[in-house]
Amino acid sequence: MADKIYRVNMTTLTTTVEDVPENLQGHGGRGLTSNIVAAEVEPTCHPLGSHNKLVIAPGLLSGTTAANSGRISCGAKSPLTGTIKESNAGGTAAAMLAKLGCKAIIIEGMPSTKDNWYNLVLNDKGITINEETELVGKGNFAIVETVASRLGEKFGVISIGQAGEMKMASANISIKDPDSHLRSCGRGGLGAVMGSKQIKFIALAPTDNKVAIADPEAFTAANRVFTKALVDNPISQALGQYGTNVLVNIINEAGGLPTRNFTSGQFDGHEEISGETMHDTIVEREGKPKHNCHKGCVIQCSQIYNDMNKKYKTSGFEYESIWAMGADCCVDNLDHIAEADSMMDDMGIDSIETSVAMGVAMEAEVLEFGDGAEFCRILKDEVLAGTGLGRIIGSGAGSVGRAYGVTRVPVVKNQAIPAYDPRAIKGIGITYATSTQGADHTMGYTIATNILGVGGTVDPLSKEGQVELSRNLQIATAAIDSTGMCLFIAFAALDDATCLPALVDMLNARFGIGLTADDVTALGISILKTEHEFNLAAGFTNKDDRLPEFFSEEPIAPHNVIWDFTDEELDTFWDF
Amino acid sequence: MADKIYRVNMTTLTTTVEDVPENLQGHGGRGLTSNIVAAEVEPTCHPLGSHNKLVIAPGLLSGTTAANSGRISCGAKSPLTGTIKESNAGGTAAAMLAKLGCKAIIIEGMPSTKDNWYNLVLNDKGITINEETELVGKGNFAIVETVASRLGEKFGVISIGQAGEMKMASANISIKDPDSHLRSCGRGGLGAVMGSKQIKFIALAPTDNKVAIADPEAFTAANRVFTKALVDNPISQALGQYGTNVLVNIINEAGGLPTRNFTSGQFDGHEEISGETMHDTIVEREGKPKHNCHKGCVIQCSQIYNDMNKKYKTSGFEYESIWAMGADCCVDNLDHIAEADSMMDDMGIDSIETSVAMGVAMEAEVLEFGDGAEFCRILKDEVLAGTGLGRIIGSGAGSVGRAYGVTRVPVVKNQAIPAYDPRAIKGIGITYATSTQGADHTMGYTIATNILGVGGTVDPLSKEGQVELSRNLQIATAAIDSTGMCLFIAFAALDDATCLPALVDMLNARFGIGLTADDVTALGISILKTEHEFNLAAGFTNKDDRLPEFFSEEPIAPHNVIWDFTDEELDTFWDF
Repeated sequence: MADKIYRVNMTTLTTTVEDVPENLQGHGGRGLTSNIVAAEVEPTCHPLGSHNKLVIAPGLLSGTTAANSGRISCGAKSPLTGTIKESNAGGTAAAMLAKLGCKAIIIEGMPSTKDNWYNLVLNDKGITINEETELVGKGNFAIVETVASRLGEKFGVISIGQAGEMKMASANISIKDPDSHLRSCGRGGLGAVMGSKQIKFIALAPTDNKVAIADPEAFTAANRVFTKALVDNPISQALGQYGTNVLVNIINEAGGLPTRNFTSGQFDGHEEISGETMHDTIVEREGKPKHNCHKGCVIQCSQIYNDMNKKYKTSGFEYESIWAMGADCCVDNLDHIAEADSMMDDMGIDSIETSVAMGVAMEAEVLEFGDGAEFCRILKDEVLAGTGLGRIIGSGAGSVGRAYGVTRVPVVKNQAIPAYDPRAIKGIGITYATSTQGADHTMGYTIATNILGVGGTVDPLSKEGQVELSRNLQIATAAIDSTGMCLFIAFAALDDATCLPALVDMLNARFGIGLTADDVTALGISILKTEHEFNLAAGFTNKDDRLPEFFSEEPIAPHNVIWDFTDEELDTFWDF
Repeated sequence: MADKIYRVNMTTLTTTVEDVPENLQGHGGRGLTSNIVAAEVEPTCHPLGSHNKLVIAPGLLSGTTAANSGRISCGAKSPLTGTIKESNAGGTAAAMLAKLGCKAIIIEGMPSTKDNWYNLVLNDKGITINEETELVGKGNFAIVETVASRLGEKFGVISIGQAGEMKMASANISIKDPDSHLRSCGRGGLGAVMGSKQIKFIALAPTDNKVAIADPEAFTAANRVFTKALVDNPISQALGQYGTNVLVNIINEAGGLPTRNFTSGQFDGHEEISGETMHDTIVEREGKPKHNCHKGCVIQCSQIYNDMNKKYKTSGFEYESIWAMGADCCVDNLDHIAEADSMMDDMGIDSIETSVAMGVAMEAEVLEFGDGAEFCRILKDEVLAGTGLGRIIGSGAGSVGRAYGVTRVPVVKNQAIPAYDPRAIKGIGITYATSTQGADHTMGYTIATNILGVGGTVDPLSKEGQVELSRNLQIATAAIDSTGMCLFIAFAALDDATCLPALVDMLNARFGIGLTADDVTALGISILKTEHEFNLAAGFTNKDDRLPEFFSEEPIAPHNVIWDFTDEELDTFWDF
């Protein structure tokens, strides 16, 4: 049976099941969400109004046995950036949607009154809209627990916490993982879009269906090669051992760890929050240093972090979150950071955006740099409670800057710049500036080549080659984000000649087609251009492809470098 | 002695006196501020950073005996809209600056630390920068009083209250009037720009100097004709009797009085807040129904409004403020409105932006529609105190919408739409959408022709002729805003054939030149285009020349009309 698109109209509270149009059949994940959003959403519409649509799609290889193919994409016009947006995460949902024969869920319209909340349940028979009362006002942990007891442990869950209900511009869409913990589609406030549709969660029924594979033998063979490339890769191995947080010491050493609201590139407390310290703490407290966020992941960069009493505190404890609360806010206490991480998962709010927002609030003297306890109190008593201050923080770093008249506000297209300073690691600055989605390291992760020596070497402190590097990575990433693959396959893909051909072979074996590597590049280019055109139609211009002026004026220690790309150089990015 | 430009550099804390360059000599008021901002300010700069400049200029006729020539213009890149911005007001400053031989003050740079505040004193000898401690944290009333006791009653004052110190995006620049009350350059948050320069006030010394007139006899003759045209005009007379608030009943009758956050065009409580009721209350409480905000005003639309104990409460009690707190927030109690008006004057915050923001907050259920006491409490305990909620409100209506996820947010280019619903009075919608400065009725006051029958008749409910009407008025307004004239001369100018020629004659007699009416039109066109080009260079596009989508979707009572201009029709505005 061919995959279907499930369309949910929240104005009429009706659903339809549609065949996948010819032009979308070759798309999955980000390529699918971006193409549907570009085709169906008026670019100038209000992101929280009835004309925006939330599109949820598994990747092209999701649901298969392909290693690391469990990413799910959510797409819409972003309430944070105003651009097109795709945010993806692990968890169980991608594989479950694929096995249920769901190419994408499109949620459109919005209820005519604010009185009622709803949930969606997707199973073999179709999708239903149901009124939800019990879980309104509840966090993601309660949703996962309640859905398990209401429908069954094995149901998948896609949900929003209180932040999404409050339509905060940094709200996540959260995805249940195999251990009933959470992964987050964190960037761009897509949880607020789901909140505007008044949908608290989507439950996915388990099924015995299998995803059809056109050439199972070829698929298995290719997957074997692909998996070996992943597990043999030294960066994959480091990610497995220390998690993404292995980067704290590496980026600090490179002088590119944004510290104290982007006023230094090194953090005195880096050892206290490093991946190595975290690993030892986890082991000592009998947590799990290695953990997979979705079935079939062979890298296992997630982990279970326990508190001092050896009780579960958080999982998926990422470098980005730890950097943001740690170096950027000068909190050198992993337990405070874990506490905040857990709270943010539960209320469903982006740990990057929210923590960078706190850093700006610290600069505004709302709280003091380094005060992890107050950071946690504000999350609980202000953000979760929806107070004025909580709303300012929950609306992101740009919002804090505007509310308090701060000029050192690290955002591009109103989205917080993540954990790599663009002055000291210039390639990532190109990605921040030009990405179709606002500042986002995952859109073109030049750290690989600028710092980790993957895919060649490009000096992070020189301007040379950075535009090309970012462009090539942004194109490749758009394609990878369409497959359902985790972005961390990129390390092997860049350094192991067998990896990418094996991925293409899997796509061909899955669908019975004959893609080449060039076709995959063409797919990436086409996705980027579709996204860029949406943004132009929404009113964005090259003036939006810029870093904030302070990066060009304030040298950052230890290299004492500024951001020195000209506007003309930045504008060459789109010359392709 | 030829007029000079006084340049104040707040980075180096130095001042220079400069000759007026040839190309700026024919400019005054808005034409001068906009040309200087366009020439000297990087359009993409942060409005609260060191690259923005605050320009303060009297009009071309300010300081002369010309009737109604006492408007002062402040210009900069706006922190509220991101566009170029000019905001003008009455008071004593324009005439004083002109008599001191000051063509403009340009304030640039910013102090390197946040520790110190400053004041500027301009007198016959030049301009000085002085450290200010006593008045930091104080409101405008205290500043006016303190400057009087410190320097003398007759000093002029240009100041910011606490809102400007907090760099709130709705902060005013306040101007002392002849009775030591206040007038406000209210729109666009220019007070925040002054706050970013850490200047609390500018004091202007009285002088016996007179403005040079090239042909005094011709000037006096022209002024006599001009003045007669003003005083004979029936709308001038109505403005004198009831103030601008004469409009409440007129606009309510027309069905264009935005009510309950723009969900109706008529307000049940209109009688309670009308100009007629206000007039009777003022008389009963021994206030002044007529009052001039600057010397030489023959219209006298200002008034002194006393409280129940016949003690002074507020002055310059405008229709826009009364509508915004009244109909838009459903507060039908003039005393609550007067109390709020006085507080907003003192803290120095735009009464339109702030009140429309409160209306959006009411929709978000932060407070209830109609609760004037809570409105006042929030102003005092939240906005003035700089709490989270206060910062949200103080950042304007768009800010409230973003913080609370409200979609019915009446702003264009992030500036609140004022007191005329664009669905029921379509010409003003063209002005809101296309103005170079965000939604602003004063930029092209089509109400004159749509409602008041001045300058012909254009049916407010029909699309026909509205673009041309708005364009012609926007061009004329840009020119009038350069003369130092109050915009209310427009009623006479549109209906009395002697008025405009007399104004041109005064300009010619003042400078010994030979302008024609066509030259004045050309001046207006050139100003608009200069402003528009600045905005395009700042990243604005035609997508920003739009009204919020709810206007196209929600019919408004009593006419049940929507905003029905197409994008293409709106874009024809700039075809000139």
